[in-house]
Amino acid sequence: MRLRVDLLPHGNYPDVVLVIDTLRATTTAITYLERGAEALLLTRTPDVALNLKEQAGGQYVLGGERGGLPIPGFDFGNSPVEAAAQNFTGRTVVMNTTNGTDAAHVAAQTGKHVYLASITNAHAAARRAKAQATEEVAIVCAGTDQHVGLEDVYAAGVIAEYLLALGEFSIDDGTRIALTVRRNAGNPLEALSSSVHGERLAGLGLGEDVRYAAQVSTSTIVPTLTPDAQAPEGTLHFTAG
Amino acid sequence: MRLRVDLLPHGNYPDVVLVIDTLRATTTAITYLERGAEALLLTRTPDVALNLKEQAGGQYVLGGERGGLPIPGFDFGNSPVEAAAQNFTGRTVVMNTTNGTDAAHVAAQTGKHVYLASITNAHAAARRAKAQATEEVAIVCAGTDQHVGLEDVYAAGVIAEYLLALGEFSIDDGTRIALTVRRNAGNPLEALSSSVHGERLAGLGLGEDVRYAAQVSTSTIVPTLTPDAQAPEGTLHFTAG
Repeated sequence: MRLRVDLLPHGNYPDVVLVIDTLRATTTAITYLERGAEALLLTRTPDVALNLKEQAGGQYVLGGERGGLPIPGFDFGNSPVEAAAQNFTGRTVVMNTTNGTDAAHVAAQTGKHVYLASITNAHAAARRAKAQATEEVAIVCAGTDQHVGLEDVYAAGVIAEYLLALGEFSIDDGTRIALTVRRNAGNPLEALSSSVHGERLAGLGLGEDVRYAAQVSTSTIVPTLTPDAQAPEGTLHFTAG
Repeated sequence: MRLRVDLLPHGNYPDVVLVIDTLRATTTAITYLERGAEALLLTRTPDVALNLKEQAGGQYVLGGERGGLPIPGFDFGNSPVEAAAQNFTGRTVVMNTTNGTDAAHVAAQTGKHVYLASITNAHAAARRAKAQATEEVAIVCAGTDQHVGLEDVYAAGVIAEYLLALGEFSIDDGTRIALTVRRNAGNPLEALSSSVHGERLAGLGLGEDVRYAAQVSTSTIVPTLTPDAQAPEGTLHFTAG
């Protein structure tokens, strides 16, 4: 079995893909499902999300951000702390974010099993990946505007460590780099806080989100891509795994 | 001053760019100039190199590889050990390799000062970069077929450490990752040998090249992009800096 960490999305994933956007899309996605959301719809653009809301009214809740800030017309930003304080029971959350939703769409093009992962669900995500994979587990870091993000590489290292504890894998250089970062860049909060993205969020007054995202394996929810013929075009449909 | 490490080439370099392809293109390029070559012409395709040789005969020596193996019609592979055993005095070496020459072309699109760097010229390259930069030093890892290579990230960390000793820089996440890898992935030979590319070269019987590339700051040559109106179209003209 191969274990591969892509420090940025590349495409061509044959088997299991874990998509990571630690700050904050995948952490927030996990939280929506934790707080009762029935499903998530990840869209490639904010317009797809806004059109859905216009057509279907109260059926959808919109969450997302651009450059860390809420999108006009959306109900929520992309904050796991904000999400954790709400009850989404029975609702479908439509998400659009700067990097994470794009990475999920890249993964979905070829991946057989696509999951959203973060530090908060690291152990559950590793177990799910190991259980489903037949040839490869690919951990895909969303990055920020096509630049590698320390927070995602660190999170990939946390998950890679669990996977290596669960079974035998041949590993690539991306995995070696992620493991080295995970083992040597401090504890999760130190690593996330020192990243460019973590610093930017702190500057926007969103430091609590960084602290939230640095919690290790506090959730057993693994958002799972679930093909659904009813899902609107241009969206990816995820449910709690 | 900004210090930026791109774990893969991205483009948009405003100032100084150090292009790294440790195994083996930039290490070999340094060696050609060490051994007396007057200039290097980096081409985007093997055909451009072969056409040059056909037109100009003995003026050019061709060096390059595809997937680690020599290119048919070329005079040399891409081996620094092979290059170190020859005398290239007064010759122009036309180089084409799998990843390194492409990365140099990306850097040349916008970079003001473009250099080739490796572990073997790390100190000299850092000094040159620091001396020329007015706003940013970008260290660009060539990678392998669009995958991040441990050997290039390690080499970037070696150069970044020198730069941080030479002056004040604000650093990005790529730099943080490269420094973490450099400080924690073993000595240069251990790191290069454990990389996917290092293992492949050892398997091809080219382990001596890996050992050669792991020598720290043994050369003071910094191949420097030198605009030359006489240089054939589709080539980048480098001379010893």
